[in-house]
Order: sequence, then C-alpha cells, then structure tokens
Amino acid sequence: MNIMDEKIKRIIEFMNENSIDAVLITKNPNIYYLSGASPLAGGYILVNNDGATLYVPELEYEMAKEESKIPVEKFKRRDDFYKVFEGVKVLGIEGSLSYSFVEDLKEKGKISEFKKVDDVIKEMRIVKSDEEIKIIEKACEIADKAVMAAIEEVTEGKKEREIAAKVEYLMKMNGAEKPAFDTIIASGYRSALPHGVASDKRIEKGDLVVIDLGALYNHYNSDITRTVVVGSPNEKQREIYEIVLEAQKKAVEAARPGITTKELDSIARNIIKEYGYGDYFIHSLGHGVGLEIHEWPGVSQYDETVLKEGMVITIEPGIYIPKFGGVRIEDTIVITKTGARRLTKTERELI
Amino acid sequence: MNIMDEKIKRIIEFMNENSIDAVLITKNPNIYYLSGASPLAGGYILVNNDGATLYVPELEYEMAKEESKIPVEKFKRRDDFYKVFEGVKVLGIEGSLSYSFVEDLKEKGKISEFKKVDDVIKEMRIVKSDEEIKIIEKACEIADKAVMAAIEEVTEGKKEREIAAKVEYLMKMNGAEKPAFDTIIASGYRSALPHGVASDKRIEKGDLVVIDLGALYNHYNSDITRTVVVGSPNEKQREIYEIVLEAQKKAVEAARPGITTKELDSIARNIIKEYGYGDYFIHSLGHGVGLEIHEWPGVSQYDETVLKEGMVITIEPGIYIPKFGGVRIEDTIVITKTGARRLTKTERELI
Repeated sequence: MNIMDEKIKRIIEFMNENSIDAVLITKNPNIYYLSGASPLAGGYILVNNDGATLYVPELEYEMAKEESKIPVEKFKRRDDFYKVFEGVKVLGIEGSLSYSFVEDLKEKGKISEFKKVDDVIKEMRIVKSDEEIKIIEKACEIADKAVMAAIEEVTEGKKEREIAAKVEYLMKMNGAEKPAFDTIIASGYRSALPHGVASDKRIEKGDLVVIDLGALYNHYNSDITRTVVVGSPNEKQREIYEIVLEAQKKAVEAARPGITTKELDSIARNIIKEYGYGDYFIHSLGHGVGLEIHEWPGVSQYDETVLKEGMVITIEPGIYIPKFGGVRIEDTIVITKTGARRLTKTERELI
Repeated sequence: MNIMDEKIKRIIEFMNENSIDAVLITKNPNIYYLSGASPLAGGYILVNNDGATLYVPELEYEMAKEESKIPVEKFKRRDDFYKVFEGVKVLGIEGSLSYSFVEDLKEKGKISEFKKVDDVIKEMRIVKSDEEIKIIEKACEIADKAVMAAIEEVTEGKKEREIAAKVEYLMKMNGAEKPAFDTIIASGYRSALPHGVASDKRIEKGDLVVIDLGALYNHYNSDITRTVVVGSPNEKQREIYEIVLEAQKKAVEAARPGITTKELDSIARNIIKEYGYGDYFIHSLGHGVGLEIHEWPGVSQYDETVLKEGMVITIEPGIYIPKFGGVRIEDTIVITKTGARRLTKTERELI
C-alpha cells in the first residue's frame, strides 16, 4: 500500500467511525497531501468507500493527470460537479469550507448534514514523515542562505523593499517556488511592527532591522527571523536582544516529546516577563510549519498539544516597543526522539 | 463625507433594507476597501448603525492604527472578540466566511440568522473609481515592463524558473509589492497547460512559450499574457497564434458599456470555433481585476453582467493542444464611456 492509499484509508476509517457517507476536500494543501496534485484554479477530492477521486476544472485536467496519484475527473463548471453527491446525506467537510459552498451543497448537492473532518487531517499532517522533514530541511537551507544575504544587504540608505526583492530572487534561484510569505524587512520604528512587510523606508544608521522570511520549496515552507543593528547597538537595543535570545534558546532547549506547546510558550514568556518586558511580547511563541506556513500546532497559551517526534514548529519570541523598535529571533525546529533539532541554522549571536 | 464614510453608509443602508442588525467583514480585500488597513494576521470590521470599527489581533494594532481610516480596537484572541455581537441576532456576512467561523458565531456570538452581503460589496467594488484605475494602470505598467523583460530572457537553454525569478525581481524593484500570482512561464508541451507555473524545464528551440504575469501594486492587481516562439514558428504555431490574436482583438474592440460579459465571451469563442479549435479553448474569456486578481465580473458563458464604465476586466482567449503546445494573449482593459481602453500595452504581434 502506498503512502497516498494509507492516508485515504485513514480518512475512510474516520468516515465510517463517524457515520459520514463521503468526505469532500477542497483546501489546496490537503488536496496536495492526499493526491500529489496542486490545481491552481482549485479542485475537489471526494472520498467514499470506493476510494478517492480528484475533480478539477477542465483547464487543470492535463496537469492534474500528470501529478495526481489518485484518479482524476474533469468538470466544465462547479454546477456540473454536484451530481457526485448522489446518495450522500452526511458529508464530511473541512472547517475552512465557505458559507456559500455549504449553502450550495445543501441546495444543489442535497446534503442534509455536515461533519467536520479537520481532526483526522490534522492528526496526519501534524506529524511529518522523514521525507517531509527532508523537504522542509531543504526549504530551511534556502531560507538560511537568504537571511545571510539579507544581513549583508542591510546597509544605510537602502530601501527595505530592495533588500526583500534581492533575497526573494535569491530564494527562487536556489530552487524555491516562491517566498513562504511576504518578506519582512522592518527597520527602525517599523521593527516594532511584528508584521512589518518590507516598505519603501530606507535603512538608517542605528536602526534595529527585523528580517523575517521563508521559502516555499516543493510545497513545504520554512520560516526564520533574525534581527540586526546598523552600526553599534545602544544599551537598550542590546538589552532587549539579549533577553529575546535567552528566551529563544531556552525554549528550543526545552522542546521535546511530552512537553505541551503551552508549557513551551510559558518558558519563553516567563523569561521575558521576569525582565519586565512581558507586555511587549504580543504574539504567541510559534506555530507549526509544513504545507502551510501557519499550521498545527499553535505554540501559545491557548494550545496544549503534547509535542511528538516529527512535529515541526517555530520558536520566535519577540519584544516590540512602539516607536523605539523591536527584536525577534526565530528558528524552525523539528521534534526528535529526545529533544529538538534546529532546521534553520543561521547564527543567533548577531548583536 | 469622505470616500470610506460613503462606502460604510452604503453598507448601513443595505443593512437596514434587509433587516440585518450588523455586518461582519473578514476578507482582507474588503477590509482594505472599507478601512485602508491590511492586517496581515487578519482582522474584522463590524458595521452597525453607529458606524464601522476595525478589530485586529494585538500584534497588528500599531500598524492598523497608522493605516486605518476607521476606528481600530485590538483583541488578544478571537474568543475575546465575540462580545461585540451583543444584541445582534441577524448578522450580515461574506459568502467566503468559513463554516467553522459561522459555527462559532452561532455558539459564542449567539447569532441566530445569517444573510449574505456580497451583493452590496460587489456593487461597489465592481466599478472602479478614477483613483483605483490610476493605480491599476500603474500595476499594468509594471507588468508590461516585466513581460518585455521576460520576452528578452526567453532563450534556448534557460530554465523557466530563472526567467520567472528575474521578472519578479524586476517587478518588485519597479515598485510592486509582489507578483499578483505565481508567474507562468510555460514552454513547449507545458504551454498547453493554462496554469503552467514556471518549472525547472529548460527552454528549447521551437518552443511556444506562454508568459502570464501580473504585479500587485498598492493593493491592486494587473494581468497580462503574451506568447512567443523560440526561433521561427512552424505553420501550425502561426495558425493558432493568428486565431487567438484575432479573437483577442475582436473582443477588446467589442468591449463597451451595455454589452454583457457572456456576449463578449461568445465573440471570442465563436471565432475560435469557426476555425475548428473550439474544443481547445478550455477556460472563460476573462475575469474582473482589482483588489483581487480574480474578481467580478466573470467574463464567461455563465455570467451576464452588463459592462459599465469603470469596470476592469481581462480579455484572454487561448488555444491549448495537449502535447503540442498552446497560445494565450491577454490584456487588462478598462471600460470607458464609449468603448474600452487597454491598460496593458505590450505589442501583440509577436509571432
């Protein structure tokens, strides 16, 4: 039995355990996960007791046939597609399915009940196979090279956007499909904005510069952040850098099978709190990384996933002081049998 | 009354006409359209009879305050946000809202009825203001430069991905936030795949090469496609190129206020049919372009929008012959008082 068959089999089991007649998969990362195809204009996988079929619009048909490891059918428009639901009363769906689609499924597909199947997909996707980890590691390697290049490029007078353009080009030339997300180059006061996507601001002397980027490689993401200062750091810049670095290192060291993501978040958060900057750490410690840049588990006060070997997460504490600036240090790590291994490897002692 | 106030006022009117207590806006292009802010980690606009408020997670607060033209509030996590629905029974939502969110709104927000508000948003966004057209024109100018550069780069031996990397870099250096979508460089047999995103395939002599790209500039998109041949075209390549070119030109010439999008699609489709290639034109003629790369109206057999001055659409017929190759020619155009004007201006006689 190949790996796709095993995944489909698990979904069929879940279906039968939960009295679901068929399962509809519409989210692109899940379609790729279950079929190996990634139709740009979208597609649908229908799983029932006979197995799984991928349905795509006509313009995606030739490519999907090439890529897919499960049977592919084409349709001219979505309305033609509803006939596949003949005899289906209880349909398993992803929670992300749109309100409009659900309404259409009730009306045109005659579905009478919906049950969410996110749990079974999460259960599979949250633990990465060795092959997946190898791909993510390669995505991290591309991101490492890009972050090193960005650090070199960060000089007085350059625009944040120019630096982003250069490193995104480099990632693509190194094999990335595209950036995993909008590259963040946030300098000076903008470094206090956790999502300070590269702008037309020019880098100034004395700026803290937060560089946060990732590569999408072979459908998998990576995520890394480093912070540097242009010129010599002042006392306060150095102080918050040291605190964030300590929090990041301690959390990476603590990551291992058995600890919960909430406990991990607390380790970093308590360090930052003890130094008096608790109110300036305004996001969660991290998130899962895989086919999506943000996936399970959350690494926060609101998530109590018990870490397991094969999970891939980020550890990214930060301190953001409005108007003054901010520091974030982030690695993508994989949970191993006994601890964790950093997949992004760029040096962390940069200030 | 400023432009944001006018938009909010229109939503409040719609609310009252349809016995809706409040409207929740969650989709990023709509949030930008109604507030001027674009929180990367998402946010929510709540409109009620008192006006509109943007709610964002804590990490987006400082940036949203800077950008937003409507009041901004922050919340620590989504669960804290549901208290804003006190007293709301009938909630207006976007059709794109997820099934999970709708379930949470029922349970935690005590919403008893949902009504879709897409129509009022579509009615506003489908006709672009002069200011919006100027921005889209600039996005098209960036795309024109990129497509010209791509045509120069298309030479024997180069990888599709390298060409994409170069033109995406160029777009960003010319002011684009990012590519409007994954750049398509589809050569040889891959040109028959309408969504042949640049791959590691090398360009070969005699290849048809479809170049389809766009720029996101100041939140607005552009979209252009050109097809070239490496070296001299053979007879069949030239034949299908001429047919697609004729269909594209005739459709652009026919575009004007009063014609429906279905009629426009038929003009191009009938030309291709008459030459015997109807079965190889496997997608719609075009789509609206604006804050989203695909928006209203559809330009297809399944959409009968009557074109109006200020609408921005693409005209992109194509012929795709599996294994042999394909041709697509596309411009972004704006409907004027008496006809249409091409916003992408790259020469179309390329073979």
